[in-house]
Amino acid sequence: MTDSPDPHHTENVQEHLQKVQALLERHALVESLAHRQEMPRAERHGLVDTLLHKQHLTELREKLESLHPADIAFILEALPIEQRLLAWDQIRAERDGEILIEVSDAVRESLIASMSRAELLEAAEQLDTDEIADLAPDLPQAVMHDVFKSLPVEEREQLRSAMSYPEDAVGALMDFDMVTIRENVTLEVVSRYLRRFNELPDHTDQLFVVDRDDNFTGALPLNRLLVNEPEMEILPLIAHDRVTLRPDDKAEDAAKAFERYDLVSAPVVDEDGKLVGRVTVNTVVDFIRAKSENDLLNLAGLREEEDIFASVWKSAKNRWLWLALNLCTAFFASRVIGAFEDTIAKFVALATLMPIVAGIAGNSGNQTTTIIIRSLALGQISASNARRLLLKELAISALNGLVWGGVAGVFAYLLYKNVLLGVVMTSAMLLNLLLGAFVGMLIPLTMHKLGRDPAIGSSVMLTAITDSGGFFIFLGLGTLFLLH
Amino acid sequence: MTDSPDPHHTENVQEHLQKVQALLERHALVESLAHRQEMPRAERHGLVDTLLHKQHLTELREKLESLHPADIAFILEALPIEQRLLAWDQIRAERDGEILIEVSDAVRESLIASMSRAELLEAAEQLDTDEIADLAPDLPQAVMHDVFKSLPVEEREQLRSAMSYPEDAVGALMDFDMVTIRENVTLEVVSRYLRRFNELPDHTDQLFVVDRDDNFTGALPLNRLLVNEPEMEILPLIAHDRVTLRPDDKAEDAAKAFERYDLVSAPVVDEDGKLVGRVTVNTVVDFIRAKSENDLLNLAGLREEEDIFASVWKSAKNRWLWLALNLCTAFFASRVIGAFEDTIAKFVALATLMPIVAGIAGNSGNQTTTIIIRSLALGQISASNARRLLLKELAISALNGLVWGGVAGVFAYLLYKNVLLGVVMTSAMLLNLLLGAFVGMLIPLTMHKLGRDPAIGSSVMLTAITDSGGFFIFLGLGTLFLLH
Repeated sequence: MTDSPDPHHTENVQEHLQKVQALLERHALVESLAHRQEMPRAERHGLVDTLLHKQHLTELREKLESLHPADIAFILEALPIEQRLLAWDQIRAERDGEILIEVSDAVRESLIASMSRAELLEAAEQLDTDEIADLAPDLPQAVMHDVFKSLPVEEREQLRSAMSYPEDAVGALMDFDMVTIRENVTLEVVSRYLRRFNELPDHTDQLFVVDRDDNFTGALPLNRLLVNEPEMEILPLIAHDRVTLRPDDKAEDAAKAFERYDLVSAPVVDEDGKLVGRVTVNTVVDFIRAKSENDLLNLAGLREEEDIFASVWKSAKNRWLWLALNLCTAFFASRVIGAFEDTIAKFVALATLMPIVAGIAGNSGNQTTTIIIRSLALGQISASNARRLLLKELAISALNGLVWGGVAGVFAYLLYKNVLLGVVMTSAMLLNLLLGAFVGMLIPLTMHKLGRDPAIGSSVMLTAITDSGGFFIFLGLGTLFLLH
Repeated sequence: MTDSPDPHHTENVQEHLQKVQALLERHALVESLAHRQEMPRAERHGLVDTLLHKQHLTELREKLESLHPADIAFILEALPIEQRLLAWDQIRAERDGEILIEVSDAVRESLIASMSRAELLEAAEQLDTDEIADLAPDLPQAVMHDVFKSLPVEEREQLRSAMSYPEDAVGALMDFDMVTIRENVTLEVVSRYLRRFNELPDHTDQLFVVDRDDNFTGALPLNRLLVNEPEMEILPLIAHDRVTLRPDDKAEDAAKAFERYDLVSAPVVDEDGKLVGRVTVNTVVDFIRAKSENDLLNLAGLREEEDIFASVWKSAKNRWLWLALNLCTAFFASRVIGAFEDTIAKFVALATLMPIVAGIAGNSGNQTTTIIIRSLALGQISASNARRLLLKELAISALNGLVWGGVAGVFAYLLYKNVLLGVVMTSAMLLNLLLGAFVGMLIPLTMHKLGRDPAIGSSVMLTAITDSGGFFIFLGLGTLFLLH
């Protein structure tokens, strides 16, 4: 991180945005005035363009200059594409890198597309190697090639290492800003060493103790450095049993360790015991937020986050896979109904009631799936639990089937004055709710066993089964009991 | 926080759980042996119970004693209720408090229900006032009364203040573990002052500078204390423009500030400028996780998180509101179909195809709702954006209506060899997708305007409208164009 203006109070971000929007709109107004036909060409260039026009841009530039990179990122995300690129042009090249790191993937793409190879290289050169690794997937290969060549050997190695880990591994969250010390010194020596820094890396809450071969031997919490007498040896103060991470640990597990043990930083140690980097809580917070947003997007069938100002075409493509999948399952459910056309023709009431049977079991099954996905994520489900939980979910569904199925049965009876129809309704609801619970539990457990994320796709599969199953059960029972 | 055993590597939590489960199962085995009829009563008490039985419990006690409170909380959450309470009994009373803080609400309830008033008082007395405030909603009033009486005056005030804020305000996240200093001293003086502590509060990354009336004037980052010479005055090193929070700020906004500016701690200052507390990143991480879990649970129609081992009855009640609501909207949709019974009787194909029209628009509308809810949460939607976004969502739906509606129309034609049916299908899909986009946008925007959380309930309302609307549009068009 470079030293950027200090952040202000939260409420101000919206105000910053409004200010920037106002400047951009005034600029646009001048632009449009300048292009009006009534004004002689010379005059508009001379007067309007040069004075007013430039004045607004200067003001905009100064405003942006005063903001924290995260705030600028926020503002860029909230601006439509033309205004976004105009604002982006007003930002000093040295700050481009730190802002690119902060914006969302979708918006980053739009900014990078507007930059030349030289600009991208300059932006990347302002960043730490772990930050360059974060940008790498979005940069053109030629630029990454240039960046590699521009780095000193040691950093080239770091970049290669940071880029070698999958996105969901600790290695991808890691940075290299560590302060390391030796164990055979006094606190006084450590303090003197720290005073040689201009600034300690952000989130330094502990110093890492290594031997001469860079093997990690423990950590000295700053806390202990501060409360003990300077002449003390550090050896007895070293914590040997702090959480240490491996670069190939799952990022999700590291995040849980941060949550559970209230960490600010954690050392990353490779299998040979060498200290290779550290993970800090701010990266973990970003990871947690991104993960939970992705879960929400996936649940709604969006492939990835959308830039709200992206083109219709681009947004539509983001949503197609899901819609196509749902259309297929809907076609299938439609054919299940089609198999009972004769029954429906003779007993039209079945057509009016069948969506109730399908819908409620889908909702109830979804509740089961959500509970199971959450418990799987928390690591609370074992082989011995699973059977017990299945029985419990089936019992809940049986209860719901009797209660709500009973209500639906009475509803059906009151509408059509047919006792048998009411009985068919209640039985179908009960059976389909049981199916929903069974499948709602089976799907995420199976996906988990296959090593896949149960949060993705469980609900489409579930609804496909409760829809088709519901139609089949209800219309099947109707055919058996009502057509005689 | 009291000083508890240091945490170990993440992978171990599952191993700890398995170890505890094994001990509990061996204990249960001995219990059941002891109750077998074949064994004379005297013998089983003498031999089995006293020796083996107690040995397992001692081992269990030692195992639990060695664990971090967060790990114990994890284990308790993963155990069925009888085993959970047995394990809970083996934990030293002094540790009860810190563990109660860590467990989920649902599990906390089950633990507190098993404790006597005296035990609860003892547990509470081990905690900081901000932690007591977190427990307060779950404690019986009589216990809270005792706790109040047992506290010194200053802490009583803190507790009253911490309890006075709503759950979603900064005041509820705040703790009182601050280190404060005066501004007219040297770094040397500050260092000497810190050495008088046994331990600095967790997450102390800055010291708060106050005047003699406790007015907050700035912060001294430890970073600057460490890299500068001891004889320096602190005045020029004080940061005056750091993020400060107000106790009645929204917790969500504070969380965003932590994310955006990578904070470890932030001072909380009241409207008179007095320093009243601080918020630390670990609390913020817990808040973010809890918020995102709640969003997921709400989406699936679960009122609150469930203890997976809670009774069937309790879990069922947690799911009823949602099911009842869905049943109502399903009844309504059913009546819409009912209005077209004559049409369906004459043209049964309509009954087989109608769920497709309703379902796809629900899915597509849900995508729109999710995008809008996310953008609202990020503060990206303004009055000028909203119209633009609505037009975009309508355009996407029009595109989808032509593409997927076209596919569905061809499907309908191929099945029933009726061109007009295909045209009705495509038109109904198009219209219902437009309805879905319009309503999917309108609902969250309206809820936001009314100051309600758009994440709660938007999707039930949306589906109610796309279902009933879809049936109405499709069957209505069918009646108009196919029945002649």
